[in-house]
Amino acid sequence: MTSRLLLLGAGRSASSLIQYLLRHAPAEQWFLTVADANPAHLAPVLAAHSEYARAVPFNAEDEGLLDELIGQADIVISMLPALLHPVVAGACVRHGRHLATASYVSPEIRALHAAAAAAGVTLLMECGLDPGLDHMSAMRAIEHIRARGGRLTSFKSYCGGLLAPAAEADNPWKYKFTWNPRNVVLAGQSTAKYLENGHPRFIPYQQLFARTETLAVPDYGEYEGYANRDSLSYCAPYGLDDIPTILRGTLRRPGYCAAWHALVRLGLTDDSVNLGNAETMTWAELIEAYLPASLIPHLDLSLRLATYLGLNPTGEEMGRLRWLGLFSDRPVGHANATPAQLLERLLSEKWQLQAHDHDLIVMQHQFEFELAGQAHRLTSSLAVVGDDATHTGMAKTVGLPLGMAVRRLARGQVTTRGVLLPLDAALYESILEELATEYSIRFNEEEQPVAPPQ
Amino acid sequence: MTSRLLLLGAGRSASSLIQYLLRHAPAEQWFLTVADANPAHLAPVLAAHSEYARAVPFNAEDEGLLDELIGQADIVISMLPALLHPVVAGACVRHGRHLATASYVSPEIRALHAAAAAAGVTLLMECGLDPGLDHMSAMRAIEHIRARGGRLTSFKSYCGGLLAPAAEADNPWKYKFTWNPRNVVLAGQSTAKYLENGHPRFIPYQQLFARTETLAVPDYGEYEGYANRDSLSYCAPYGLDDIPTILRGTLRRPGYCAAWHALVRLGLTDDSVNLGNAETMTWAELIEAYLPASLIPHLDLSLRLATYLGLNPTGEEMGRLRWLGLFSDRPVGHANATPAQLLERLLSEKWQLQAHDHDLIVMQHQFEFELAGQAHRLTSSLAVVGDDATHTGMAKTVGLPLGMAVRRLARGQVTTRGVLLPLDAALYESILEELATEYSIRFNEEEQPVAPPQ
Repeated sequence: MTSRLLLLGAGRSASSLIQYLLRHAPAEQWFLTVADANPAHLAPVLAAHSEYARAVPFNAEDEGLLDELIGQADIVISMLPALLHPVVAGACVRHGRHLATASYVSPEIRALHAAAAAAGVTLLMECGLDPGLDHMSAMRAIEHIRARGGRLTSFKSYCGGLLAPAAEADNPWKYKFTWNPRNVVLAGQSTAKYLENGHPRFIPYQQLFARTETLAVPDYGEYEGYANRDSLSYCAPYGLDDIPTILRGTLRRPGYCAAWHALVRLGLTDDSVNLGNAETMTWAELIEAYLPASLIPHLDLSLRLATYLGLNPTGEEMGRLRWLGLFSDRPVGHANATPAQLLERLLSEKWQLQAHDHDLIVMQHQFEFELAGQAHRLTSSLAVVGDDATHTGMAKTVGLPLGMAVRRLARGQVTTRGVLLPLDAALYESILEELATEYSIRFNEEEQPVAPPQ
Repeated sequence: MTSRLLLLGAGRSASSLIQYLLRHAPAEQWFLTVADANPAHLAPVLAAHSEYARAVPFNAEDEGLLDELIGQADIVISMLPALLHPVVAGACVRHGRHLATASYVSPEIRALHAAAAAAGVTLLMECGLDPGLDHMSAMRAIEHIRARGGRLTSFKSYCGGLLAPAAEADNPWKYKFTWNPRNVVLAGQSTAKYLENGHPRFIPYQQLFARTETLAVPDYGEYEGYANRDSLSYCAPYGLDDIPTILRGTLRRPGYCAAWHALVRLGLTDDSVNLGNAETMTWAELIEAYLPASLIPHLDLSLRLATYLGLNPTGEEMGRLRWLGLFSDRPVGHANATPAQLLERLLSEKWQLQAHDHDLIVMQHQFEFELAGQAHRLTSSLAVVGDDATHTGMAKTVGLPLGMAVRRLARGQVTTRGVLLPLDAALYESILEELATEYSIRFNEEEQPVAPPQ
């Protein structure tokens, strides 16, 4: 029997998902409708000349067409922005259609659980990279430890959308945008919460990028992680309610966070105020405006900034700020903007991924557990390099797990209804297996006993 | 002819306003209706046994009664929260009634300008202390300087709701709440903007309380001022579009800001995250949760905090933090709260105004101007001590200018219609005169020539 699949949203991060769906459509008897407002996003579908797929121009604000398309589908896959998902999921429940996404379960989606279950609908959420592959790989390791009789004492998990080493070479931050720039600029603007040895830990935004942990990833060297907003939210879904230590973090190359911390302290990540600036204001003038006039006035701007922030004038932090052009006569180019908007505009040029650059997805889980009176440490690491500018590491690790979840949903292998996360062994084991055997996306596991503290 | 006055909202800060209105009702032929949801707020009106006034129970959400009351009045005076003013002002325009308030002109109020003008209605806004008395006194000084042929080069203006010196003695912060505690805790959470020697200056929240200016007020000693959010918004209304330096600030006693800066850096003023804490968590446990575990673990909590923030362990900042009880076993007393909510709860006890305490309103304008080739400096200072716990300095300086503005509106001395601020000499000169002669609320002016820079 043919399954009619509807993919809403076919932007950059959907490339590998579309390729996966087209690849399996003949054998799986799928007919795929890809809907997107941007003709360029539909071009790859049209270029495939597949008899198993069609492309439909679709503006997400057209709720009439949305309703019509969902009515014509068996399974809806949404890569639309997460804030549109309540409307999409509501229509899926009304029409009795399953939904699969790579987005977090929002309160609005959670509220649809009972109605979806009653309608026999599965709303399969958080099936991309993070959230998605993080859940699957962490749960597999946790269940394996439990199956051996181990008792978990610590779980730290880090993920980052980064660069393959060759693409880092021209950039002292060793970072370029492979994801929503605005989210990167505004990252962490709250208080991060985690648990350490049974004690709650809080890190406010103004300290976040100064309090990182360093970790090593096999073959790729060292990274540093800063804490995500709410690590505690993972306790319940993972069955870790009594774990003494839990931390989720985001990865950057060493040095990035210290330099970003300088930008935070300077005030350039604030998005709450319109500076009323002219488009022609230069970056040097903008930085000048943040410095107290009381600093020795004839000193070079970058020296005064270093003095103000207490940074070594010839150190790495100042080197990274200088490389961004913060002390240059280049116009900020955007009138009446917030500091965060100006910084995003600057970084979007400086941190632009080049056509020949390959991105890199890094994920690492660090488990500590007790087994037969002995403490053990298990480190599970993943590194996925993008194939090219289209099939990036990001597109592959977001799209392939989602496509594989849809494949199992279409086959009737997912029988739980209502709002669902990929936390069941039956689902994640087979997806992780397919990722490893078909795409060489596999976690490298290292386990060793830990010497007891002296 | 009798004027029917309607006062909406009769809470703490309306005490002096009500007294003023009752005092002048017989001679001015006013009949005053005071409407408030809280019977305790209406008690003073009932206790006055005035034949010129009545009290009406009134819930601000009852738009039917609001409409009825406004229909029965000639002039409406609102001390309701500012967010209710668009509804009140809309009803005033519909019924053709004048309105007077002590609140800022919001975009919603500004949008009513043309309709109010067409209906022959005056919406007289910003007639309290700040905004209100600040406008009146600054404009008077500015116009006097202009009348002498002076050219303004700098205008700095500070205001604070503070304590009479005797009430400061038991408190190292020399501060207690005489105003909305939540606003004090969340103050400054944006980027402050001002102008200095023709250059824009920006101070982000994370630096705001570290970048204060010190000033002296005759008879009251030194204060420090931190910059308000948007000093530039005063340029246009005051006719100061070309002034090189303009700064508005809020006053505290010296030392307050450095200690508050420590609370900001620690993260205790964040209102964006629910900590998920237990009500029984102690303050010491909360502070512990903000410290990195890497600090020497056996050291005393307050020493570790001092190390973390780079403060002198026996210095004044740490003394103020210790006095708050941050290192005590006292429970935070509020489950699932934001850091800012916990801090507000603690401060509401520690900074509670006592029955015998007198508050103090301080305002200072600092002008620099050129006159006949010579630079001059004019400092205009006001200090108003509260009479008692009812007629506080805050209640007097908010309520009396507003009452006086209403008196002139009722007499037909305000003929401009639409949205209006008290920036016309005819209005503010007579109000400032009445404040000085009847209430001894007068600005102390000191002028001196400034030596040219060497």
